Amino acid sequence: MKTIDVCLSPELMHLYQLRDRTVVVVDILRATSCMVTAFAHGVESITPFADAESCRLMKRKGFIISGERDGKKMDGFDKGNSPFEYMGADIRGKRIAFTTTNGTQAIEKAKGANKIIVGSFLNLSAVVKYLLFGENNVLIVCAGWKGKVNLEDTLFAGAIIEKLRNHIEPDCDAPLVAHELYKQGCKDMVAFLGNSSHVKRLNRLNIHKDISFCLTPDQYDVLPKLKNGVLTLI
Amino acid sequence: MKTIDVCLSPELMHLYQLRDRTVVVVDILRATSCMVTAFAHGVESITPFADAESCRLMKRKGFIISGERDGKKMDGFDKGNSPFEYMGADIRGKRIAFTTTNGTQAIEKAKGANKIIVGSFLNLSAVVKYLLFGENNVLIVCAGWKGKVNLEDTLFAGAIIEKLRNHIEPDCDAPLVAHELYKQGCKDMVAFLGNSSHVKRLNRLNIHKDISFCLTPDQYDVLPKLKNGVLTLI
Repeated sequence: MKTIDVCLSPELMHLYQLRDRTVVVVDILRATSCMVTAFAHGVESITPFADAESCRLMKRKGFIISGERDGKKMDGFDKGNSPFEYMGADIRGKRIAFTTTNGTQAIEKAKGANKIIVGSFLNLSAVVKYLLFGENNVLIVCAGWKGKVNLEDTLFAGAIIEKLRNHIEPDCDAPLVAHELYKQGCKDMVAFLGNSSHVKRLNRLNIHKDISFCLTPDQYDVLPKLKNGVLTLI
Repeated sequence: MKTIDVCLSPELMHLYQLRDRTVVVVDILRATSCMVTAFAHGVESITPFADAESCRLMKRKGFIISGERDGKKMDGFDKGNSPFEYMGADIRGKRIAFTTTNGTQAIEKAKGANKIIVGSFLNLSAVVKYLLFGENNVLIVCAGWKGKVNLEDTLFAGAIIEKLRNHIEPDCDAPLVAHELYKQGCKDMVAFLGNSSHVKRLNRLNIHKDISFCLTPDQYDVLPKLKNGVLTLI
């Protein structure tokens, strides 16, 4: 049976073999939710950048530049990190260069994996189907918050484990931790996350609408995959 | 209100301020459970070593040397990592030099904290009382398994959070993850841990008795504390 493991923070990535695995990068609030939303609304590609200044330079090459640090849009960037910014006709057929506090850093660290896809609750079933029918063992990489473990990404990992539990075997204890968390929180994820540090941080920024949207499963049947450093649809 | 945080792996220690904190080091299976048992049976001191060879050299200085790697007693050492080895009259009044796969490594990384104590289910209430009446913010450091997060240490962190929840505030999301896990598992911890990777590993070594003993709360009212690199009773 294939195995699945969960890396609860990008700071633990060095402990995992990546070469033969399919990696799912997840940053529920809000980088990977934005990316999935953008692809569902017709964006051509998204190039993730760990470094903000390299991202900014892509403006000259005709990219839409999206930048967020500490939950806020960066000065001089076209867009920030709310999924509602990625639903308009202005992004259709366009290329986006994207940098965020945690999510794009996690993608950077995942390079070296056999396959890298982007997951969120919004495309949960598309992710599950891909992992189920793929040949590789799986590693879910939670973006966390500046290296620390967070509730929402761990919860998403637990949702994947729940859906694959009869088909893919947990490799270590982190999948069990994530699965138990999901069992506790799945009935009302918005309420469950009400105490999380990141939700408190985002609530201060007045984006309740973003949070409940990002926790809605299966809004979009799209699956972004990284190839040569660029995300496109499979 | 004081705060409490949980470092789910020693590999994440660099993310936490230690200077002003009381750190509780925990390695339920089995280093800190052994240490607590040894103190309850009259050992004078325990000197933890991250490095096995430095530990071995303490034999010449009259120490009992205890060494475990990958769950097994190391060749040439007096004792291994089962709490039942630390209940006899042979350790009364003696000094032990101790090295283990995960626990003593975690103690090494915690150096620099304001106070360092050793926790296990066996001395749960003694730990809780100390944290409650102390002035410092708290960090629970889970020893994990070779850097990876494990179920039993996270569960213990959750037990501490549960007992202190009306008095000390969670600092970030890791305490919430640990607390939810404890709520799921507290009714029958032995059964709950039956799936964990480390318990499976230890079951192969035939030490079921160790596991259920290490999960028994409040066997001993002792609290080992690190001072100048040596653990003694408070």
